[in-house]
Amino acid sequence: MNTYSPNSGNDQIILRISPEEIRRRQAAVLMVMKRKGGDAFVHFNPISIFYLTGFAFAPTERPVALIQTSDGGSVFFIPQLEIDHCRESAVVDRIESYPEYPGHRHPMLILGDLLSNCGLDKANIVVDSDGYGSRWGYTGPRLREVLVGARIHPGPQIVGELRKFKSGDEIRLIKEAGRWGSHAHRLLQDAVAPGVTETEISINASRDASVDMMQTLGKDYDPKAWVPLGVMTGFRGQVGPNSANPHAMMKNLTLNEGDVLVTYTRPVVWGYYSEMERTMFVGQPSPEQEKYFHLMNSIRDIAFEHIKPGNKCSDVDTAVYAFYKKEGLLKHWRHHTGHCLGLELHEAPFLDSGDSHPILPGMVFSVEPGIFFPGLGGFRHSDTIVVTDDGFEELTHYPTDIASCACNV
Amino acid sequence: MNTYSPNSGNDQIILRISPEEIRRRQAAVLMVMKRKGGDAFVHFNPISIFYLTGFAFAPTERPVALIQTSDGGSVFFIPQLEIDHCRESAVVDRIESYPEYPGHRHPMLILGDLLSNCGLDKANIVVDSDGYGSRWGYTGPRLREVLVGARIHPGPQIVGELRKFKSGDEIRLIKEAGRWGSHAHRLLQDAVAPGVTETEISINASRDASVDMMQTLGKDYDPKAWVPLGVMTGFRGQVGPNSANPHAMMKNLTLNEGDVLVTYTRPVVWGYYSEMERTMFVGQPSPEQEKYFHLMNSIRDIAFEHIKPGNKCSDVDTAVYAFYKKEGLLKHWRHHTGHCLGLELHEAPFLDSGDSHPILPGMVFSVEPGIFFPGLGGFRHSDTIVVTDDGFEELTHYPTDIASCACNV
Repeated sequence: MNTYSPNSGNDQIILRISPEEIRRRQAAVLMVMKRKGGDAFVHFNPISIFYLTGFAFAPTERPVALIQTSDGGSVFFIPQLEIDHCRESAVVDRIESYPEYPGHRHPMLILGDLLSNCGLDKANIVVDSDGYGSRWGYTGPRLREVLVGARIHPGPQIVGELRKFKSGDEIRLIKEAGRWGSHAHRLLQDAVAPGVTETEISINASRDASVDMMQTLGKDYDPKAWVPLGVMTGFRGQVGPNSANPHAMMKNLTLNEGDVLVTYTRPVVWGYYSEMERTMFVGQPSPEQEKYFHLMNSIRDIAFEHIKPGNKCSDVDTAVYAFYKKEGLLKHWRHHTGHCLGLELHEAPFLDSGDSHPILPGMVFSVEPGIFFPGLGGFRHSDTIVVTDDGFEELTHYPTDIASCACNV
Repeated sequence: MNTYSPNSGNDQIILRISPEEIRRRQAAVLMVMKRKGGDAFVHFNPISIFYLTGFAFAPTERPVALIQTSDGGSVFFIPQLEIDHCRESAVVDRIESYPEYPGHRHPMLILGDLLSNCGLDKANIVVDSDGYGSRWGYTGPRLREVLVGARIHPGPQIVGELRKFKSGDEIRLIKEAGRWGSHAHRLLQDAVAPGVTETEISINASRDASVDMMQTLGKDYDPKAWVPLGVMTGFRGQVGPNSANPHAMMKNLTLNEGDVLVTYTRPVVWGYYSEMERTMFVGQPSPEQEKYFHLMNSIRDIAFEHIKPGNKCSDVDTAVYAFYKKEGLLKHWRHHTGHCLGLELHEAPFLDSGDSHPILPGMVFSVEPGIFFPGLGGFRHSDTIVVTDDGFEELTHYPTDIASCACNV
């Protein structure tokens, strides 16, 4: 059910996951839970909860939990603050709210009461974590401390395992996100000029692309994410020498002729992200920059050659790493070849020499080997692909050749 | 050392926390650690690590840890990816990197080796959590599983306790952030008009305010945060009836004459946020809107009256809640009166009827009681204040009266 078929109408534009698919996800969790002998599953992870209900919310100090019971029922446990919002969109059977955190009675105690009232006070309860975590000042007891008669079993990876394989509709959402990422990137590239700041170019391109996106997709577009725009694009500080930091942060640098630029795009459609990044130049690249750019593209080619069912994730990264070694580039290596993505910007599995997951149809990866030269800059393209029965399909599209990536100034 | 004095030159503009203050924070953690009989502290929480090193990074699947040893030394354990970036800014004695996650050898095993090499394989180790958590596809063993001879003691709240009291420089950063929040909000308000979308107004105001901010503060401004702009402002979907959802999400709604608007501002200076929000109207408010606006301001007054050393956090929220009850407004109540903030948008303690923390000088709170009417809209101002020896000082400034909040159209 959850694998991808190239014949499944993949180019149809959809803007949401259907309630039916969400119910199927709940059923898939139930199946695994029952196999583990569980009477109920309690989810605390906000991404898992969105995945299983379609209700997107800003996680705060106020715990949110989803209870699935073995009869297929689902109960949402939320703060009062979210009640109207939740009723609008959550695919659940029942919603129960508590007043506030910490409140006169701690929300975890109220959750314990609710589980008892569901007849679960002596049950086998599978949990993704034994309590809510330490977000935004939250502290509280573990579930085993408030439901002392129950047996609490950790089953943290159940939703994570499902999320490794994207359905046709999930892939369509990621592909739709990718289209707007490319559009934003075109606006970004067209605005590159010496003497302007990264902030102005980035935000203008992000705004214009987001307005185009939202006007084109209309009222059915819903980001389902705590974001200010439909698509963000920019440099995130990766301008000139600072682009040698793969995870640089915004500095409002001014672009100068001759700079290497590393870009990003972050579009979101119904909670799903795609990733597309390019290495560009302000004006024409120097011979040295040109050399590294071509090397980076050669490394990319090696990565793509190895992405196919039958290979393991590690095979891709091992082949890529061998090239760095052969070319004497190891000291310019900084990170693995890529990672899965979807509801989160990075997800498991990873295109990493230590990740032995088999590559399987329906997995959605970023492919982004890079080389980094302190003082000069970084060289990395990134694209999002989905693994198919016999290879992969690209979900993001933008030119990768050097002529296309040299910005006329 | 960590309390606030109104005579401490609080209006001086600073744009960073000094390395000396960061060292003092490390020493404060050490002191508590030793009192607990610990030989070392291992921090995994990214906010704690920023607080204790000044190194801001994007938390990913790659674990990051900070080791503090009882001799006062500090060792940073980071992925290769961050090494250049970390060397630029981290206040630590030593930096050790690992290649990648999951890698040929899992980073937690490498961390175990490092701790052993530090002579800590049989030590008493205090941790904020027993392992790295479940971020972005990360899975891995707990610290007690990789360092089996050591005794692992949870001490999760040590940094959280320190963070409850802001130093003079932390308050100055929050105040500086507040100035730019107010500036952004002025630009936002001036652009309010019927027929325009929330996206355009929000992003233009955010961009213009951020450019002004960065040009004015110059190169010394560093957001130390994974953000695209220095200050964001907007409505986050809180336009017209949708403003009745206190945690609405961006929908690109079009503003109509007569709409209630609830705004937000999110400026960041060296990792520190301030919060300022206003209820506004597109054009002149209706008599009903005016009534609720005045009620909201009355509730605010009650909150402010009760914020002073000697009171508990719960005293503020209890007094506020009593007013809702007296006025028959309980069904329009959605959340507590406020929360601390600083490096996170919400921090403990909370202005909540269940929070018995004493209110003490140096605590920085949002004050934001609201009333919410499904179908009509929400009414909430928010401001950031710091508790002083005899009351509080406002760190954000913007008019709160109805004439100032009605946008001419």
